[in-house]
Amino acid sequence: MTLPLIQPRKLKGFRDYLPGPTRLRQMVMNEIRAVARRAAFQEIATPALEYEETLLGQGGEETDKQVYRFEDHGGRKVALRFDLTVPFARFVAEHQGELVFPFKKLQIGDVWRGENTQKGRYREFGQCDFDIIGVDSLAADVEVMLALATVLSRLPTGGVTMSVNHRGLLSGILKAAYGSEINAAEETRALIAIDKLAKAGEAEVTKLLAAIPAHGRGSEDAARLVMRAITVKDSGGNADLAALRRMVNEENPAALAAIEPHIERVSAIVDTLRRAAPPEGVRFALDLSVARGLGYYTGVVFETTLDRLPGFGSVSSGGRYNDLASRFTNRELPGVGGSIGLDRLVAGLEELGTADSSMKGGAMVAVASSDALSYAFDVVSLLRNSGVNADIGLTEGKVGNQFKYASRLGYAHTVTVGGSEMATRTANLKDMNTGEESRGLPIAEIIARLASQ
Amino acid sequence: MTLPLIQPRKLKGFRDYLPGPTRLRQMVMNEIRAVARRAAFQEIATPALEYEETLLGQGGEETDKQVYRFEDHGGRKVALRFDLTVPFARFVAEHQGELVFPFKKLQIGDVWRGENTQKGRYREFGQCDFDIIGVDSLAADVEVMLALATVLSRLPTGGVTMSVNHRGLLSGILKAAYGSEINAAEETRALIAIDKLAKAGEAEVTKLLAAIPAHGRGSEDAARLVMRAITVKDSGGNADLAALRRMVNEENPAALAAIEPHIERVSAIVDTLRRAAPPEGVRFALDLSVARGLGYYTGVVFETTLDRLPGFGSVSSGGRYNDLASRFTNRELPGVGGSIGLDRLVAGLEELGTADSSMKGGAMVAVASSDALSYAFDVVSLLRNSGVNADIGLTEGKVGNQFKYASRLGYAHTVTVGGSEMATRTANLKDMNTGEESRGLPIAEIIARLASQ
Repeated sequence: MTLPLIQPRKLKGFRDYLPGPTRLRQMVMNEIRAVARRAAFQEIATPALEYEETLLGQGGEETDKQVYRFEDHGGRKVALRFDLTVPFARFVAEHQGELVFPFKKLQIGDVWRGENTQKGRYREFGQCDFDIIGVDSLAADVEVMLALATVLSRLPTGGVTMSVNHRGLLSGILKAAYGSEINAAEETRALIAIDKLAKAGEAEVTKLLAAIPAHGRGSEDAARLVMRAITVKDSGGNADLAALRRMVNEENPAALAAIEPHIERVSAIVDTLRRAAPPEGVRFALDLSVARGLGYYTGVVFETTLDRLPGFGSVSSGGRYNDLASRFTNRELPGVGGSIGLDRLVAGLEELGTADSSMKGGAMVAVASSDALSYAFDVVSLLRNSGVNADIGLTEGKVGNQFKYASRLGYAHTVTVGGSEMATRTANLKDMNTGEESRGLPIAEIIARLASQ
Repeated sequence: MTLPLIQPRKLKGFRDYLPGPTRLRQMVMNEIRAVARRAAFQEIATPALEYEETLLGQGGEETDKQVYRFEDHGGRKVALRFDLTVPFARFVAEHQGELVFPFKKLQIGDVWRGENTQKGRYREFGQCDFDIIGVDSLAADVEVMLALATVLSRLPTGGVTMSVNHRGLLSGILKAAYGSEINAAEETRALIAIDKLAKAGEAEVTKLLAAIPAHGRGSEDAARLVMRAITVKDSGGNADLAALRRMVNEENPAALAAIEPHIERVSAIVDTLRRAAPPEGVRFALDLSVARGLGYYTGVVFETTLDRLPGFGSVSSGGRYNDLASRFTNRELPGVGGSIGLDRLVAGLEELGTADSSMKGGAMVAVASSDALSYAFDVVSLLRNSGVNADIGLTEGKVGNQFKYASRLGYAHTVTVGGSEMATRTANLKDMNTGEESRGLPIAEIIARLASQ
């Protein structure tokens, strides 16, 4: 066959993971799984492909447009999942009889969105979701947020801030500013505007808010009130709840009673997180400007940013929703969940340059003559079984090539064997950094030296 | 919104992973990654979606029919990968300047095939591929096979047999039986027939072989000669190489010289594997009936079966190919690779029932009154930081519910806290198996007791 060559190329918006970035990604997943195991979140997995009707209409029109959809071999309309939440809702509805509630779950998987590509955004990316389904409690809110905070504290992020808010508070603020007559569509519009604050700035958000009809006052006044309420901080840098109470009480006393329980809940969440052996390097901040664009949140909402990369955006976010699987079952399943954007976080760690993703140390057994190959495998197996990361020269006899390979991969030591070493069960140990070589060392001694490093 | 409910259902041929099977799958992947790290195989990842032209025509017509293909939002013809080998070929051709050769790689990922479903076969399944690219050497063959064998030896399989053969030996046998004039298409037909031996039996394979035209003798005679050569064993249960040499020499002396180097190579591979600290529970057998249907193998071929599940089929297989990326680059890239069928292997372990996939031990902190919640999180964090897997009751105050949950999940201990325990920094420790309870123990003592278990 001499067919013309095909250009080796990836699809636009997709990426390959070379060994270094794969190690970094794997390190993050290892920490996620370690935290989940320690805190009794159970991992599950669902298929990449689902019926189209399962996925569509669940993430909003914008998302629907981005979903990869097609007909399979049996003429079924199928789609690649665009997040892990909708498949999880289907999973819970289908398996509710097999699960113990409250169900604490972890799911790690890739999702696909055919969105316009931009720097650091891909059409295929990994998500890691922690959720607790089947209970509406302060403890569940704290438990999910603590798990996410613990994962982030175990990574070399240089510090993160988890900003916390409550949808009920935002709703109270909007009612105080726009009047109790504000309807659901207008509230959503306002939330989407507030969600843009970090990226678009105060002036732009004020303009968007001023375009929403107000009742009993001008829209521009309403917009200014909202902006003041969500941006005023107390001396500790947290949302000023006293100022919030005053403002709501002045503008719409009826709304104050409605928001009190939400103030209490979100304050208790942040207090408990701060007091419960707070994970190192994680700051919890009450921030009334956190909105999270998605429609389904009903309680606490939060997002986490890297302190050393202010413009980078959120690496983890989530919130409470009051009914996960309402499209699939009549059973009411309240829950709280948070997601870590795996590839976003890996990109952040790459940008910070704090994570070491090199192959560290290790030894390579060099094979000086092909009659010593069997002995070389004996030696490399002994090293590996003693806990030493060990490679073996693959070009029998050509020992120069093997040394070049060992030095390109950065191995700390080489262990060279040939016919005479085989006869005496010895080898020549070389330190690749200093160039120092010890010839004819007994294998047991070499293993003892390398295993102790 | 009161839209009609959608039935929660998976696509046919796809499966959900509940917590138990996910733990099992994760355990297998952990062993694979541990072995890879120890033996210096570097992990990479490629996208699930590729250009259709990258994937099609690479796995044979049968595979092409099973590929999930569609047009994306930009009108590009795209396809979901059906294996990890073809994307890896594209990867190596695209990134050859960034890799150190010989390149030892691990890739773990899901693949998709729209084939007819049958018991234990899914349309989405995980593969784990070990490959060494850029060198044709005995050492590389052994290194890949040793890695696979080591993974399998670390799992509770109850013993596996890795059966080893060489494509050159099969080719020599076919030339001896059918005459040197046998062409490539006929050889492939014969290999596909031989590959069916375990499933279809000797009579059926003999019939298929007898339908291939022979030169200088009848096809039925040729078929009988082939069957005798590939099934005769020596007293140790390995292929009888002496009988093979006699048969080839009698029928086609020219073919004997051609197969001698292959006999030497495959014998040296098996010898080296047996002598190089053989992984416990893995038997290496020389078996001339191993064919591996795929066209691209050129050297050693092997497959691994579970000793305690004779009819289950192969859980790991592979071989040497002489040119991985010939569709993408003129650079010749010989390699050797082996794959573990992740979901096949998990299904085997489930059938064997040898792997414990339950959540083991662990403790749950029960919250007897909601004012103790913050203290309860303090206690659960201390336990987790001391290495204890610990859950927390999520229905504040309703301690009866919490105990029911702890017992359904099988936790070994509960640690109950209320207002009075908070005041004295104590808790009540209960052994869920014996029912024994120690009241008012200092937290430090509880942690010491649970951490030592």
